[in-house]
Amino acid sequence: MPTQTELQTVLDYADAHMDESLERLFELIRIPSISTVSAHSDDCRAAAQWLADQLGVLGFEASVRPTEGHPMVVGHKTDAAGPHVLFYGHYDVQPVDPLALWETDPFEPTLKPAPNGDTHIVGRGASDDKGQLLTFIEACRAWKMATGALPIKVSMLFEGEEESGSRSLVPFLEATAQELRADVMMVCDTDMWDRDTPAITTMLRGLVAEEFTITCADRDLHSGMFGNAARNALQVAADALSSLRGPDGGVAIAGFYDGVEDLDPTIAAQWKRLPFDQNGFLSDIGLRIPAGETGYSIMEQVWARPSCEIHGVIGGYTEEGFKTVIPAKAHAKVSFRLVAGQDPVAIRDAFRSHIRARVPDDCSVEFASYGASAAIALPLDSPYLTATRHALGEEWDTEAALAGTGGSIPIVGEFKRQLGMDTLLVGFARFDNRIHSPNEKYDLSSFKGGIRSFIRVLAALSELKASN
Amino acid sequence: MPTQTELQTVLDYADAHMDESLERLFELIRIPSISTVSAHSDDCRAAAQWLADQLGVLGFEASVRPTEGHPMVVGHKTDAAGPHVLFYGHYDVQPVDPLALWETDPFEPTLKPAPNGDTHIVGRGASDDKGQLLTFIEACRAWKMATGALPIKVSMLFEGEEESGSRSLVPFLEATAQELRADVMMVCDTDMWDRDTPAITTMLRGLVAEEFTITCADRDLHSGMFGNAARNALQVAADALSSLRGPDGGVAIAGFYDGVEDLDPTIAAQWKRLPFDQNGFLSDIGLRIPAGETGYSIMEQVWARPSCEIHGVIGGYTEEGFKTVIPAKAHAKVSFRLVAGQDPVAIRDAFRSHIRARVPDDCSVEFASYGASAAIALPLDSPYLTATRHALGEEWDTEAALAGTGGSIPIVGEFKRQLGMDTLLVGFARFDNRIHSPNEKYDLSSFKGGIRSFIRVLAALSELKASN
Repeated sequence: MPTQTELQTVLDYADAHMDESLERLFELIRIPSISTVSAHSDDCRAAAQWLADQLGVLGFEASVRPTEGHPMVVGHKTDAAGPHVLFYGHYDVQPVDPLALWETDPFEPTLKPAPNGDTHIVGRGASDDKGQLLTFIEACRAWKMATGALPIKVSMLFEGEEESGSRSLVPFLEATAQELRADVMMVCDTDMWDRDTPAITTMLRGLVAEEFTITCADRDLHSGMFGNAARNALQVAADALSSLRGPDGGVAIAGFYDGVEDLDPTIAAQWKRLPFDQNGFLSDIGLRIPAGETGYSIMEQVWARPSCEIHGVIGGYTEEGFKTVIPAKAHAKVSFRLVAGQDPVAIRDAFRSHIRARVPDDCSVEFASYGASAAIALPLDSPYLTATRHALGEEWDTEAALAGTGGSIPIVGEFKRQLGMDTLLVGFARFDNRIHSPNEKYDLSSFKGGIRSFIRVLAALSELKASN
Repeated sequence: MPTQTELQTVLDYADAHMDESLERLFELIRIPSISTVSAHSDDCRAAAQWLADQLGVLGFEASVRPTEGHPMVVGHKTDAAGPHVLFYGHYDVQPVDPLALWETDPFEPTLKPAPNGDTHIVGRGASDDKGQLLTFIEACRAWKMATGALPIKVSMLFEGEEESGSRSLVPFLEATAQELRADVMMVCDTDMWDRDTPAITTMLRGLVAEEFTITCADRDLHSGMFGNAARNALQVAADALSSLRGPDGGVAIAGFYDGVEDLDPTIAAQWKRLPFDQNGFLSDIGLRIPAGETGYSIMEQVWARPSCEIHGVIGGYTEEGFKTVIPAKAHAKVSFRLVAGQDPVAIRDAFRSHIRARVPDDCSVEFASYGASAAIALPLDSPYLTATRHALGEEWDTEAALAGTGGSIPIVGEFKRQLGMDTLLVGFARFDNRIHSPNEKYDLSSFKGGIRSFIRVLAALSELKASN
């Protein structure tokens, strides 16, 4: 169990070596590990190898493990006393389109002074999840370099398909469950409450990700010769997509809200106390009028209510100019964020039935799944939660908020399901990080504060008794 | 005025030189003059020059005339007695996507034996409109080569933007109206009634072609962080596009059917007498259930009723894989085919108002026009119509049908508007020519019969008195 002096030594070490930590983040961002584009497979492998090498330097027994898709990275350093934490992150990043909207090369990280005095680290993955996962690795490095050891047992798992459906995750977890078992999982892929308030995310939505293709005629047709009489695949798709939400803004699929309950009163009370600027939330993204379900606050809508979003539609002639074609095919990508109580498989089936019912009998529709995971909720009485919350409070000088998140991290549900392990979601991203968008950035204060926070969290967890 | 013997000499000449006519069609098809793709501008210019050269060989005073877009070709040969015909065609072609569905190179014309004993000339533009316009040029060539002269005054006008909105057409016609004035216009860009029955198209729909872009947030957003609460541009677009048609299959824009009248009884009676296989029309394109307005036959729907079709939609992430983005923008291309009585400008305005009303106040929509032309109808008592119908009847040994067409040929409305000239639409394409689609073809019997038909039409028109 480290002393206060030891802890201060480690914090000082991290502060003194921040430039080197930042240079390592730059190295990782420069690897364009876009998992959803197969042309970047070698880059994904390179990012995995880079992480394994870093863990090796810190004395982890680390390796790159092949899967059917992009590889996993697993590392163990369990020579300390105390509880055992499994840290999870993902080294893959989102595509960078539309590239024209980036102000700098997405894979050449750039430091930009921010109006509030902070510094932005700009680049794809700067926040999601390369910057975030490095805060934990750099915290371990500071412990190792300043004291020669980690204060607790640590394993790490890095995935390369988080942004593209985590297809290899379930088989990999099934094969390595015993190896990966620990007392608690920790994930750094979430936001702070606001600039000054750290947060632990205790509610995480599930995700059902679907793609479908509607086919009508056996070829594209001339609208002058066939217009009106021949079914237009884009019209069928527009009708089907439009029908997904009802006049009250809610999802109009039969049974969609089955099992969805009102917000837990403890959480509701906490959320009421926290500052949240509803107008600012919208004006920051150029909007003014809340969309979605009437009768729910924005905070509830994005964290605690299930959603349905259309992510992509393409069909017919979409190039420059005009072509009076009746398209034979239309493609759409749609996903649902789920909350506790919703069964992902039932939602997927209900969605497919809903669409099928809107495709005429002489047309057809084919579906592809990009995953179906349930929502999860962390028990509020967990000692790991209490210790972590305390450590975060020390670093940021204010109580850590208990937050929900609209995002989905499939592994959290899988670990709960397969090993009964709970997950602490502690992240230092900020609301305006533009993750998945052009000009993604991570605040230097997030990176630095994240490293310092995890140094404290590791110390705090070392005071708990190991459960296995 | 040519004798029957002279006419037979010209027909024999055309038959004897059919291979050379076909080789010229191949030359023209090989020029990839896709007007809507700016990378093909040089090809459009090359096709224009090719046509001007051909006319020059036949003794026309011919030239390529620059415009803001692709050039026009104008040729005159008016040294004969008799009436003056202005022939119009277009040398530009549709894009070839999806290229993977072509069985042969779209710009390397290929002859393929057809199951019915005919031969298919396969290639982009083989029918629309390169094969069709050449039937008229080759008819003129046969007259010139066999008799040394044309039997009537002939001017020709070829456009290079018919497939991309004819943007330069109105200014060009305004500048050259007096030069282009003739007794009647003739266009070869339409279908035969069926394999054995020629047709003169007397009803032509107008076209309002529109593109719009909906913008919601100021950037693409992560659906986990903003889902439900932030407006999704693709959802707004789907709702707007779905609202274009009502539950009865009709167009649901306010005032859309204002001025639309029931079908003329003469036409209705003629259509009833003609064979038309409603099930075959649909099964030929892989469909079974008529779309569009309930209560109207397919023939009425495609020729005599106004329509609305979605030609292209794109927005969000449409590549391989999955990306949980809330798209900030959605693009759509939509057109309306108009019938007599509909005002194209009023329809365009009503459409834009309809869409605007469905875009939330904090989002925006921008429109672009690709043309707005009215429908036209040929007077059934025109002597040019009677003479042409007679000539077609002689060639095909059956009465020529008076047809409608769902297609739109903007110049027809413009000539009527600017010069009061009527247009004879005589074409030899067939229903299954796959124009605008992969594997476009023209039947060799269309090409040969078209040349022979125009040889007879030129003779028949020479018997009429010139009106100017």
